[in-house]
Amino acid sequence: MSSQPSTKKQRTHPQYELLYHPGIPGRGEFIRLAFEAAGVAYTDTANAAKDGYSTVQEICMNKGTESADGNPPVFSPPALRVPGAGKDGKSALVIAQTPNILFYLGERLGLVPEDEGAGRYHVQQVALTALDLNNEVHDTHHPIAVMKYYEDQKEEALKKAQDVRETRIPKFLSYFERTLKYNEEAGGGQGKYLVGDKLTYADTTVWQVLDGCMFAFPKEMAARKEEFPDLLGAFYENVKKESGLKEYLSSKRRLPYSMGVFRHYPELDRQ
Amino acid sequence: MSSQPSTKKQRTHPQYELLYHPGIPGRGEFIRLAFEAAGVAYTDTANAAKDGYSTVQEICMNKGTESADGNPPVFSPPALRVPGAGKDGKSALVIAQTPNILFYLGERLGLVPEDEGAGRYHVQQVALTALDLNNEVHDTHHPIAVMKYYEDQKEEALKKAQDVRETRIPKFLSYFERTLKYNEEAGGGQGKYLVGDKLTYADTTVWQVLDGCMFAFPKEMAARKEEFPDLLGAFYENVKKESGLKEYLSSKRRLPYSMGVFRHYPELDRQ
Repeated sequence: MSSQPSTKKQRTHPQYELLYHPGIPGRGEFIRLAFEAAGVAYTDTANAAKDGYSTVQEICMNKGTESADGNPPVFSPPALRVPGAGKDGKSALVIAQTPNILFYLGERLGLVPEDEGAGRYHVQQVALTALDLNNEVHDTHHPIAVMKYYEDQKEEALKKAQDVRETRIPKFLSYFERTLKYNEEAGGGQGKYLVGDKLTYADTTVWQVLDGCMFAFPKEMAARKEEFPDLLGAFYENVKKESGLKEYLSSKRRLPYSMGVFRHYPELDRQ
Repeated sequence: MSSQPSTKKQRTHPQYELLYHPGIPGRGEFIRLAFEAAGVAYTDTANAAKDGYSTVQEICMNKGTESADGNPPVFSPPALRVPGAGKDGKSALVIAQTPNILFYLGERLGLVPEDEGAGRYHVQQVALTALDLNNEVHDTHHPIAVMKYYEDQKEEALKKAQDVRETRIPKFLSYFERTLKYNEEAGGGQGKYLVGDKLTYADTTVWQVLDGCMFAFPKEMAARKEEFPDLLGAFYENVKKESGLKEYLSSKRRLPYSMGVFRHYPELDRQ
Protein backbone atom coordinates (compact mmCIF):
# COMPACT_ATOMS: atom_id res chain seq x y z
CA MET A 1 0.00 0.00 0.00
CA SER A 2 1.06 3.57 -0.56
CA SER A 3 -0.12 5.55 2.42
CA GLN A 4 -2.38 8.52 2.00
CA PRO A 5 -2.57 10.34 5.30
CA SER A 6 -4.32 13.70 5.58
CA THR A 7 -2.04 16.45 4.33
CA LYS A 8 -1.09 18.99 6.97
CA LYS A 9 1.77 20.59 5.04
CA GLN A 10 1.74 22.37 1.72
CA ARG A 11 5.51 22.06 1.24
CA THR A 12 6.53 19.80 -1.64
CA HIS A 13 8.14 16.56 -0.54
CA PRO A 14 9.97 13.86 -2.46
CA GLN A 15 8.22 10.48 -2.61
CA TYR A 16 9.93 9.03 0.43
CA GLU A 17 10.36 5.26 0.51
CA LEU A 18 10.57 3.32 3.75
CA LEU A 19 12.55 0.11 3.27
CA TYR A 20 11.70 -2.39 5.99
CA HIS A 21 10.49 -5.92 6.63
CA PRO A 22 6.82 -6.52 5.72
CA GLY A 23 4.01 -7.38 8.10
CA ILE A 24 5.40 -6.13 11.41
CA PRO A 25 5.59 -2.71 13.08
CA GLY A 26 9.20 -3.26 14.26
CA ARG A 27 11.73 -0.48 13.92
CA GLY A 28 9.96 0.69 10.77
CA GLU A 29 7.09 1.90 12.93
CA PHE A 30 9.12 4.81 14.31
CA ILE A 31 9.54 6.07 10.75
CA ARG A 32 5.90 5.42 9.85
CA LEU A 33 4.67 7.39 12.86
CA ALA A 34 6.82 10.37 11.84
CA PHE A 35 5.34 10.45 8.33
CA GLU A 36 1.80 9.92 9.58
CA ALA A 37 2.07 12.61 12.25
CA ALA A 38 3.41 15.05 9.65
CA GLY A 39 0.79 14.11 7.09
CA VAL A 40 3.47 13.49 4.47
CA ALA A 41 2.98 10.67 1.95
CA TYR A 42 5.48 7.82 1.79
CA THR A 43 5.76 4.41 0.21
CA ASP A 44 6.08 1.51 2.61
CA THR A 45 7.88 -0.55 0.00
CA ALA A 46 7.65 -4.06 1.46
CA ASN A 47 3.93 -3.65 2.24
CA ALA A 48 3.03 -1.73 -0.92
CA ALA A 49 3.35 -4.53 -3.49
CA LYS A 50 3.85 -8.27 -3.58
CA ASP A 51 7.43 -8.01 -4.77
CA GLY A 52 8.19 -5.02 -2.57
CA TYR A 53 10.23 -7.02 -0.12
CA SER A 54 12.64 -8.16 -2.80
CA THR A 55 13.50 -4.50 -3.37
CA VAL A 56 14.16 -4.09 0.36
CA GLN A 57 16.34 -7.18 0.36
CA GLU A 58 18.27 -6.04 -2.69
CA ILE A 59 19.02 -2.64 -1.18
CA CYS A 60 19.38 -3.38 2.54
CA MET A 61 20.37 -7.00 2.84
CA ASN A 62 22.80 -7.60 -0.01
CA LYS A 63 26.41 -8.58 0.62
CA GLY A 64 27.89 -6.12 -1.84
CA THR A 65 29.69 -2.81 -1.57
CA GLU A 66 26.72 -0.61 -2.42
CA SER A 67 23.10 -0.34 -1.30
CA ALA A 68 21.52 1.39 -4.32
CA ASP A 69 21.89 4.56 -6.42
CA GLY A 70 25.57 4.95 -5.56
CA ASN A 71 25.07 4.87 -1.80
CA PRO A 72 27.17 2.88 0.68
CA PRO A 73 26.03 -0.51 2.02
CA VAL A 74 23.28 -0.81 4.62
CA PHE A 75 23.77 -3.03 7.68
CA SER A 76 20.08 -3.92 8.03
CA PRO A 77 16.61 -2.42 7.56
CA PRO A 78 15.06 0.07 8.11
CA ALA A 79 16.48 2.39 5.48
CA LEU A 80 15.03 5.47 3.82
CA ARG A 81 15.28 6.13 0.10
CA VAL A 82 14.85 9.72 -1.02
CA PRO A 83 14.59 10.12 -4.81
CA GLY A 84 16.37 13.21 -6.11
CA ALA A 85 18.44 13.70 -2.95
CA GLY A 86 21.56 11.83 -4.08
CA LYS A 87 24.99 13.39 -4.39
CA ASP A 88 24.45 14.56 -7.94
CA GLY A 89 21.02 15.98 -7.08
CA LYS A 90 19.43 13.44 -9.40
CA SER A 91 19.79 9.91 -8.08
CA ALA A 92 18.47 8.85 -4.70
CA LEU A 93 19.88 9.15 -1.22
CA VAL A 94 19.76 5.95 0.85
CA ILE A 95 20.35 6.24 4.60
CA ALA A 96 19.97 3.64 7.33
CA GLN A 97 19.71 3.43 11.14
CA THR A 98 16.40 4.40 12.74
CA PRO A 99 17.64 7.42 14.76
CA ASN A 100 19.59 8.68 11.75
CA ILE A 101 16.48 8.51 9.57
CA LEU A 102 14.43 10.28 12.25
CA PHE A 103 17.04 13.03 12.57
CA TYR A 104 17.07 13.47 8.79
CA LEU A 105 13.29 13.65 8.62
CA GLY A 106 12.81 15.73 11.78
CA GLU A 107 13.38 19.13 10.24
CA ARG A 108 11.96 18.20 6.85
CA LEU A 109 8.68 16.95 8.34
CA GLY A 110 8.38 19.75 10.90
CA LEU A 111 8.83 17.34 13.80
CA VAL A 112 11.52 19.25 15.67
CA PRO A 113 11.42 22.67 17.37
CA GLU A 114 11.94 25.61 15.03
CA ASP A 115 15.15 26.79 16.70
CA GLU A 116 18.31 25.50 15.06
CA GLY A 117 20.05 24.79 18.32
CA ALA A 118 19.29 22.94 21.51
CA GLY A 119 15.80 21.73 20.60
CA ARG A 120 16.65 19.26 17.89
CA TYR A 121 19.47 17.71 19.92
CA HIS A 122 17.15 17.31 22.89
CA VAL A 123 14.60 15.64 20.63
CA GLN A 124 17.26 13.25 19.37
CA GLN A 125 18.50 12.56 22.91
CA VAL A 126 15.01 11.49 24.02
CA ALA A 127 14.36 9.44 20.87
CA LEU A 128 17.70 7.61 21.16
CA THR A 129 16.90 6.74 24.76
CA ALA A 130 13.49 5.37 23.76
CA LEU A 131 15.19 3.29 21.08
CA ASP A 132 17.58 1.93 23.70
CA LEU A 133 14.57 0.73 25.70
CA ASN A 134 13.16 -0.76 22.51
CA ASN A 135 16.36 -2.81 22.15
CA GLU A 136 16.31 -3.94 25.77
CA VAL A 137 12.71 -5.11 25.43
CA HIS A 138 13.69 -7.05 22.30
CA ASP A 139 16.37 -8.78 24.33
CA THR A 140 13.84 -9.98 26.94
CA HIS A 141 12.74 -12.69 24.49
CA HIS A 142 16.10 -13.04 22.72
CA PRO A 143 18.78 -12.59 25.39
CA ILE A 144 21.23 -15.07 23.90
CA ALA A 145 20.92 -15.21 20.13
CA VAL A 146 18.77 -13.17 17.77
CA MET A 147 18.69 -15.94 15.16
CA LYS A 148 17.55 -18.70 17.52
CA TYR A 149 14.01 -19.46 18.62
CA TYR A 150 12.57 -17.98 21.80
CA GLU A 151 11.89 -21.52 23.01
CA ASP A 152 15.60 -22.28 22.85
CA GLN A 153 16.46 -19.39 25.17
CA LYS A 154 13.36 -19.30 27.35
CA GLU A 155 15.14 -20.01 30.63
CA GLU A 156 17.47 -17.05 30.08
CA ALA A 157 14.56 -14.95 28.80
CA LEU A 158 12.71 -15.40 32.09
CA LYS A 159 15.70 -13.98 33.98
CA LYS A 160 16.34 -11.19 31.50
CA ALA A 161 12.68 -10.14 31.44
CA GLN A 162 12.57 -9.99 35.21
CA ASP A 163 15.54 -7.63 35.29
CA VAL A 164 14.20 -5.45 32.48
CA ARG A 165 10.80 -5.18 34.18
CA GLU A 166 12.14 -4.56 37.67
CA THR A 167 15.14 -2.32 37.07
CA ARG A 168 15.31 -1.08 33.49
CA ILE A 169 11.71 -0.17 32.62
CA PRO A 170 11.24 1.96 35.77
CA LYS A 171 14.56 3.73 35.12
CA PHE A 172 13.48 4.62 31.58
CA LEU A 173 9.92 5.58 32.57
CA SER A 174 11.27 7.81 35.33
CA TYR A 175 13.46 9.59 32.80
CA PHE A 176 10.59 10.17 30.37
CA GLU A 177 8.27 11.28 33.21
CA ARG A 178 10.86 13.78 34.44
CA THR A 179 11.44 15.03 30.89
CA LEU A 180 7.68 15.69 30.61
CA LYS A 181 7.73 17.54 33.94
CA TYR A 182 10.71 19.61 32.80
CA ASN A 183 8.80 20.61 29.68
CA GLU A 184 5.38 21.09 31.32
CA GLU A 185 5.29 24.88 31.08
CA ALA A 186 6.89 25.13 27.63
CA GLY A 187 4.79 22.23 26.38
CA GLY A 188 1.51 23.88 27.34
CA GLY A 189 0.27 21.47 29.98
CA GLN A 190 0.75 18.33 32.01
CA GLY A 191 1.94 15.37 29.93
CA LYS A 192 1.63 17.31 26.68
CA TYR A 193 4.96 17.22 24.84
CA LEU A 194 8.44 15.95 25.71
CA VAL A 195 10.35 18.75 23.98
CA GLY A 196 9.03 22.19 23.00
CA ASP A 197 5.47 23.30 22.31
CA LYS A 198 4.40 20.98 19.50
CA LEU A 199 4.62 17.33 18.54
CA THR A 200 8.13 16.08 17.74
CA TYR A 201 9.52 12.68 16.85
CA ALA A 202 10.58 12.37 20.49
CA ASP A 203 6.86 12.11 21.32
CA THR A 204 6.02 9.61 18.59
CA THR A 205 9.09 7.47 19.37
CA VAL A 206 8.53 7.34 23.12
CA TRP A 207 4.82 6.71 22.53
CA GLN A 208 5.53 3.72 20.28
CA VAL A 209 7.85 2.14 22.86
CA LEU A 210 5.25 2.68 25.61
CA ASP A 211 2.55 1.18 23.44
CA GLY A 212 4.76 -1.80 22.66
CA CYS A 213 5.59 -2.29 26.34
CA MET A 214 1.87 -2.23 27.16
CA PHE A 215 1.38 -5.00 24.61
CA ALA A 216 4.35 -7.06 25.79
CA PHE A 217 3.97 -6.52 29.53
CA PRO A 218 0.34 -5.49 30.19
CA LYS A 219 0.44 -6.34 33.90
CA GLU A 220 3.76 -4.67 34.51
CA MET A 221 2.75 -1.48 32.75
CA ALA A 222 -0.67 -1.33 34.45
CA ALA A 223 1.04 -1.69 37.82
CA ARG A 224 3.40 1.21 36.96
CA LYS A 225 0.66 3.65 35.99
CA GLU A 226 0.34 5.36 39.37
CA GLU A 227 4.08 5.82 39.57
CA PHE A 228 4.30 7.61 36.21
CA PRO A 229 0.92 9.29 35.80
CA ASP A 230 1.84 12.01 33.29
CA LEU A 231 3.67 9.61 30.97
CA LEU A 232 1.36 6.60 31.07
CA GLY A 233 -1.79 8.70 31.49
CA ALA A 234 -2.06 12.13 29.83
CA PHE A 235 0.91 11.83 27.47
CA TYR A 236 0.07 8.36 26.19
CA GLU A 237 -3.54 9.41 25.49
CA ASN A 238 -2.66 12.83 24.05
CA VAL A 239 -0.33 11.47 21.40
CA LYS A 240 -3.04 9.10 20.14
CA LYS A 241 -5.30 12.12 19.52
CA GLU A 242 -2.81 14.08 17.43
CA SER A 243 -4.09 14.74 13.94
CA GLY A 244 -2.57 12.31 11.47
CA LEU A 245 -1.79 9.80 14.18
CA LYS A 246 -5.43 9.45 15.19
CA GLU A 247 -6.44 8.49 11.66
CA TYR A 248 -3.41 6.25 11.20
CA LEU A 249 -3.86 4.29 14.41
CA SER A 250 -7.37 3.27 13.39
CA SER A 251 -6.35 2.47 9.81
CA LYS A 252 -5.21 -0.81 8.31
CA ARG A 253 -1.75 0.66 7.79
CA ARG A 254 -1.16 0.30 11.54
CA LEU A 255 0.08 -3.28 11.72
CA PRO A 256 -0.62 -5.46 14.77
CA TYR A 257 2.23 -6.59 16.98
CA SER A 258 3.20 -10.17 16.32
CA MET A 259 6.65 -11.77 16.12
CA GLY A 260 8.71 -8.59 16.10
CA VAL A 261 10.33 -6.54 18.86
CA PHE A 262 7.23 -6.47 21.05
CA ARG A 263 5.80 -9.92 21.80
CA HIS A 264 3.35 -10.96 24.44
CA TYR A 265 4.62 -14.00 26.27
CA PRO A 266 2.57 -14.05 29.51
CA GLU A 267 5.37 -15.81 31.38
CA LEU A 268 7.69 -12.82 30.78
CA ASP A 269 5.22 -10.35 32.27
CA ARG A 270 4.81 -9.55 35.97
CA GLN A 271 3.27 -12.58 37.69
CA MET B 1 43.25 16.42 33.73
CA SER B 2 42.43 18.97 31.09
CA SER B 3 43.60 17.61 27.77
CA GLN B 4 46.01 19.55 25.61
CA PRO B 5 46.15 17.88 22.25
CA SER B 6 48.02 19.46 19.39
CA THR B 7 45.92 22.18 17.78
CA LYS B 8 45.01 21.52 14.18
CA LYS B 9 42.28 24.13 13.92
CA GLN B 10 42.45 27.87 14.37
CA ARG B 11 38.68 28.27 14.82
CA THR B 12 37.66 29.39 18.31
CA HIS B 13 35.89 26.71 20.30
CA PRO B 14 34.00 26.84 23.58
CA GLN B 15 35.62 24.96 26.46
CA TYR B 16 33.78 21.69 25.88
CA GLU B 17 33.18 19.49 28.91
CA LEU B 18 32.82 15.73 28.65
CA LEU B 19 30.72 14.37 31.51
CA TYR B 20 31.41 10.69 32.01
CA HIS B 21 32.47 8.08 34.58
CA PRO B 22 36.11 8.33 35.66
CA GLY B 23 38.84 5.78 35.08
CA ILE B 24 37.44 3.84 32.12
CA PRO B 25 37.34 4.44 28.37
CA GLY B 26 33.69 3.31 28.08
CA ARG B 27 31.29 5.27 25.93
CA GLY B 28 33.17 8.45 26.81
CA GLU B 29 36.04 7.25 24.63
CA PHE B 30 34.10 7.86 21.42
CA ILE B 31 33.82 11.53 22.39
CA ARG B 32 37.45 11.75 23.54
CA LEU B 33 38.69 10.35 20.22
CA ALA B 34 36.69 12.97 18.32
CA PHE B 35 38.25 15.84 20.29
CA GLU B 36 41.73 14.36 20.08
CA ALA B 37 41.50 13.73 16.34
CA ALA B 38 40.32 17.29 15.81
CA GLY B 39 42.97 18.77 18.10
CA VAL B 40 40.33 20.67 20.04
CA ALA B 41 40.74 21.11 23.81
CA TYR B 42 38.11 19.71 26.20
CA THR B 43 37.74 19.07 29.88
CA ASP B 44 37.25 15.44 30.87
CA THR B 45 35.42 16.49 34.02
CA ALA B 46 35.50 13.27 36.07
CA ASN B 47 39.19 12.71 35.36
CA ALA B 48 40.24 16.38 35.61
CA ALA B 49 39.86 16.86 39.37
CA LYS B 50 39.22 14.82 42.50
CA ASP B 51 35.66 16.10 42.88
CA GLY B 52 34.98 16.06 39.16
CA TYR B 53 32.81 12.97 39.31
CA SER B 54 30.42 14.63 41.76
CA THR B 55 29.73 17.22 39.05
CA VAL B 56 29.00 14.42 36.56
CA GLN B 57 26.70 12.75 39.05
CA GLU B 58 24.88 15.99 39.83
CA ILE B 59 24.24 16.72 36.17
CA CYS B 60 23.78 13.26 34.63
CA MET B 61 22.61 10.98 37.40
CA ASN B 62 20.22 13.08 39.47
CA LYS B 63 16.56 12.14 39.89
CA GLY B 64 15.22 15.63 39.22
CA THR B 65 13.57 17.38 36.31
CA GLU B 66 16.66 19.23 35.05
CA SER B 67 20.25 18.30 34.27
CA ALA B 68 21.96 21.71 34.61
CA ASP B 69 21.78 25.25 33.21
CA GLY B 70 18.10 24.94 32.32
CA ASN B 71 18.52 21.78 30.24
CA PRO B 72 16.27 18.69 30.41
CA PRO B 73 17.25 15.60 32.44
CA VAL B 74 19.93 13.20 31.26
CA PHE B 75 19.28 9.44 31.33
CA SER B 76 22.92 8.49 31.93
CA PRO B 77 26.47 9.57 31.05
CA PRO B 78 28.10 10.48 28.72
CA ALA B 79 26.84 14.03 28.29
CA LEU B 80 28.44 17.08 26.74
CA ARG B 81 28.31 20.53 28.33
CA VAL B 82 28.90 23.47 26.03
CA PRO B 83 29.27 26.79 27.88
CA GLY B 84 27.64 29.70 26.06
CA ALA B 85 25.52 27.48 23.80
CA GLY B 86 22.36 27.47 25.93
CA LYS B 87 18.98 28.72 24.74
CA ASP B 88 19.65 32.28 25.82
CA GLY B 89 23.11 32.25 24.24
CA LYS B 90 24.68 32.64 27.67
CA SER B 91 24.13 29.58 29.82
CA ALA B 92 25.34 26.15 28.79
CA LEU B 93 23.86 23.51 26.52
CA VAL B 94 23.80 20.00 27.96
CA ILE B 95 23.16 17.11 25.56
CA ALA B 96 23.36 13.37 26.14
CA GLN B 97 23.55 10.13 24.15
CA THR B 98 26.85 9.22 22.49
CA PRO B 99 25.69 9.34 18.83
CA ASN B 100 23.86 12.61 19.48
CA ILE B 101 27.01 14.18 20.93
CA LEU B 102 29.06 12.90 17.99
CA PHE B 103 26.58 14.32 15.49
CA TYR B 104 26.62 17.67 17.31
CA LEU B 105 30.42 17.76 17.33
CA GLY B 106 30.91 16.32 13.83
CA GLU B 107 30.51 19.55 11.91
CA ARG B 108 31.99 21.74 14.65
CA LEU B 109 35.17 19.68 14.90
CA GLY B 110 35.52 19.16 11.14
CA LEU B 111 34.91 15.43 11.44
CA VAL B 112 32.25 15.09 8.73
CA PRO B 113 32.47 15.65 4.97
CA GLU B 114 32.11 19.28 3.90
CA ASP B 115 28.92 18.70 1.90
CA GLU B 116 25.74 19.44 3.84
CA GLY B 117 23.91 16.44 2.52
CA ALA B 118 24.54 12.73 2.23
CA GLY B 119 27.98 12.62 3.79
CA ARG B 120 27.10 13.48 7.36
CA TYR B 121 24.18 11.04 7.41
CA HIS B 122 26.41 8.29 6.10
CA VAL B 123 28.95 9.08 8.80
CA GLN B 124 26.22 8.87 11.45
CA GLN B 125 24.87 5.63 9.95
CA VAL B 126 28.28 3.95 10.27
CA ALA B 127 28.91 5.34 13.77
CA LEU B 128 25.49 4.19 15.02
CA THR B 129 26.19 0.72 13.69
CA ALA B 130 29.56 0.61 15.45
CA LEU B 131 27.83 1.69 18.67
CA ASP B 132 25.33 -1.14 18.23
CA LEU B 133 28.24 -3.58 18.13
CA ASN B 134 29.66 -1.87 21.21
CA ASN B 135 26.39 -2.63 23.03
CA GLU B 136 26.32 -6.23 21.88
CA VAL B 137 29.87 -6.77 23.10
CA HIS B 138 28.89 -5.29 26.46
CA ASP B 139 26.09 -7.83 26.66
CA THR B 140 28.52 -10.74 26.19
CA HIS B 141 29.56 -10.35 29.83
CA HIS B 142 26.23 -8.96 31.07
CA PRO B 143 23.51 -10.78 29.12
CA ILE B 144 20.98 -10.87 31.95
CA ALA B 145 21.36 -7.86 34.24
CA VAL B 146 23.64 -4.85 33.95
CA MET B 147 23.66 -4.28 37.73
CA LYS B 148 24.65 -7.84 38.65
CA TYR B 149 28.15 -9.33 38.71
CA TYR B 150 29.58 -11.16 35.72
CA GLU B 151 30.09 -14.20 37.94
CA ASP B 152 26.34 -14.34 38.58
CA GLN B 153 25.55 -14.57 34.85
CA LYS B 154 28.61 -16.41 33.62
CA GLU B 155 26.73 -19.43 32.29
CA GLU B 156 24.54 -17.20 30.13
CA ALA B 157 27.57 -15.08 29.20
CA LEU B 158 29.31 -18.11 27.72
CA LYS B 159 26.33 -18.72 25.42
CA LYS B 160 25.87 -15.07 24.53
CA ALA B 161 29.57 -14.56 23.78
CA GLN B 162 29.61 -17.57 21.50
CA ASP B 163 26.73 -16.17 19.46
CA VAL B 164 28.22 -12.68 19.31
CA ARG B 165 31.60 -14.05 18.19
CA GLU B 166 30.21 -16.52 15.67
CA THR B 167 27.31 -14.63 14.11
CA ARG B 168 27.27 -10.97 15.13
CA ILE B 169 30.92 -9.87 14.96
CA PRO B 170 31.42 -11.26 11.42
CA LYS B 171 28.18 -9.58 10.29
CA PHE B 172 29.37 -6.22 11.60
CA LEU B 173 32.94 -6.63 10.33
CA SER B 174 31.62 -7.57 6.89
CA TYR B 175 29.55 -4.38 6.84
CA PHE B 176 32.52 -2.18 7.80
CA GLU B 177 34.81 -3.96 5.32
CA ARG B 178 32.28 -3.46 2.53
CA THR B 179 31.85 0.20 3.51
CA LEU B 180 35.62 0.66 3.19
CA LYS B 181 35.58 -1.03 -0.22
CA TYR B 182 32.72 1.22 -1.34
CA ASN B 183 34.75 4.27 -0.33
CA GLU B 184 38.14 3.07 -1.58
CA GLU B 185 38.39 5.42 -4.54
CA ALA B 186 36.88 8.45 -2.82
CA GLY B 187 38.87 7.75 0.32
CA GLY B 188 42.18 7.77 -1.50
CA GLY B 189 43.28 4.17 -1.01
CA GLN B 190 42.63 0.74 0.37
CA GLY B 191 41.36 0.80 3.95
CA LYS B 192 41.83 4.55 4.23
CA TYR B 193 38.53 6.15 5.30
CA LEU B 194 34.99 4.85 5.77
CA VAL B 195 33.23 7.95 4.42
CA GLY B 196 34.71 10.67 2.21
CA ASP B 197 38.32 11.72 1.75
CA LYS B 198 39.35 12.65 5.29
CA LEU B 199 39.03 11.36 8.83
CA THR B 200 35.47 11.44 10.23
CA TYR B 201 33.97 10.30 13.50
CA ALA B 202 32.82 7.17 11.65
CA ASP B 203 36.50 6.18 11.46
CA THR B 204 37.28 6.97 15.10
CA THR B 205 34.13 5.23 16.34
CA VAL B 206 34.60 2.05 14.31
CA TRP B 207 38.29 2.03 15.25
CA GLN B 208 37.52 2.20 18.96
CA VAL B 209 35.08 -0.72 18.74
CA LEU B 210 37.64 -2.77 16.77
CA ASP B 211 40.33 -1.96 19.30
CA GLY B 212 38.00 -2.92 22.15
CA CYS B 213 37.08 -6.19 20.43
CA MET B 214 40.78 -6.99 19.98
CA PHE B 215 41.22 -6.48 23.72
CA ALA B 216 38.14 -8.51 24.67
CA PHE B 217 38.48 -11.29 22.08
CA PRO B 218 42.12 -11.39 20.95
CA LYS B 219 41.92 -14.91 19.53
CA GLU B 220 38.65 -14.32 17.73
CA MET B 221 39.83 -11.08 16.14
CA ALA B 222 43.20 -12.54 15.13
CA ALA B 223 41.41 -15.44 13.45
CA ARG B 224 39.19 -12.98 11.52
CA LYS B 225 42.05 -10.90 10.13
CA GLU B 226 42.36 -12.72 6.82
CA GLU B 227 38.63 -12.47 6.24
CA PHE B 228 38.57 -8.68 6.69
CA PRO B 229 42.04 -7.52 5.61
CA ASP B 230 41.26 -3.87 4.80
CA LEU B 231 39.40 -3.27 8.06
CA LEU B 232 41.59 -5.18 10.51
CA GLY B 233 44.79 -4.43 8.62
CA ALA B 234 45.24 -1.14 6.78
CA PHE B 235 42.31 0.75 8.29
CA TYR B 236 43.04 -0.22 11.89
CA GLU B 237 46.69 0.82 11.50
CA ASN B 238 45.99 3.98 9.49
CA VAL B 239 43.65 5.47 12.09
CA LYS B 240 46.30 5.04 14.80
CA LYS B 241 48.69 7.17 12.75
CA GLU B 242 46.34 10.13 12.26
CA SER B 243 47.72 13.31 13.75
CA GLY B 244 46.13 14.01 17.11
CA LEU B 245 45.22 10.37 17.61
CA LYS B 246 48.81 9.20 17.40
CA GLU B 247 49.85 11.51 20.24
CA TYR B 248 46.74 10.73 22.27
CA LEU B 249 47.06 6.96 22.06
CA SER B 250 50.54 7.05 23.54
CA SER B 251 49.56 9.57 26.24
CA LYS B 252 48.32 8.99 29.77
CA ARG B 253 44.94 10.38 28.77
CA ARG B 254 44.26 7.14 26.90
CA LEU B 255 42.87 4.99 29.71
CA PRO B 256 43.40 1.22 29.78
CA TYR B 257 40.44 -1.12 29.36
CA SER B 258 39.34 -2.58 32.68
CA MET B 259 35.85 -3.17 34.01
CA GLY B 260 33.92 -1.27 31.37
CA VAL B 261 32.33 -2.29 28.08
CA PHE B 262 35.39 -4.19 26.83
CA ARG B 263 36.66 -6.82 29.26
CA HIS B 264 39.01 -9.68 28.64
CA TYR B 265 37.57 -12.87 30.07
CA PRO B 266 39.56 -15.63 28.29
CA GLU B 267 36.64 -18.05 28.61
CA LEU B 268 34.47 -15.77 26.45
CA ASP B 269 37.01 -15.67 23.61
CA ARG B 270 37.38 -18.27 20.84
CA GLN B 271 38.74 -21.47 22.37
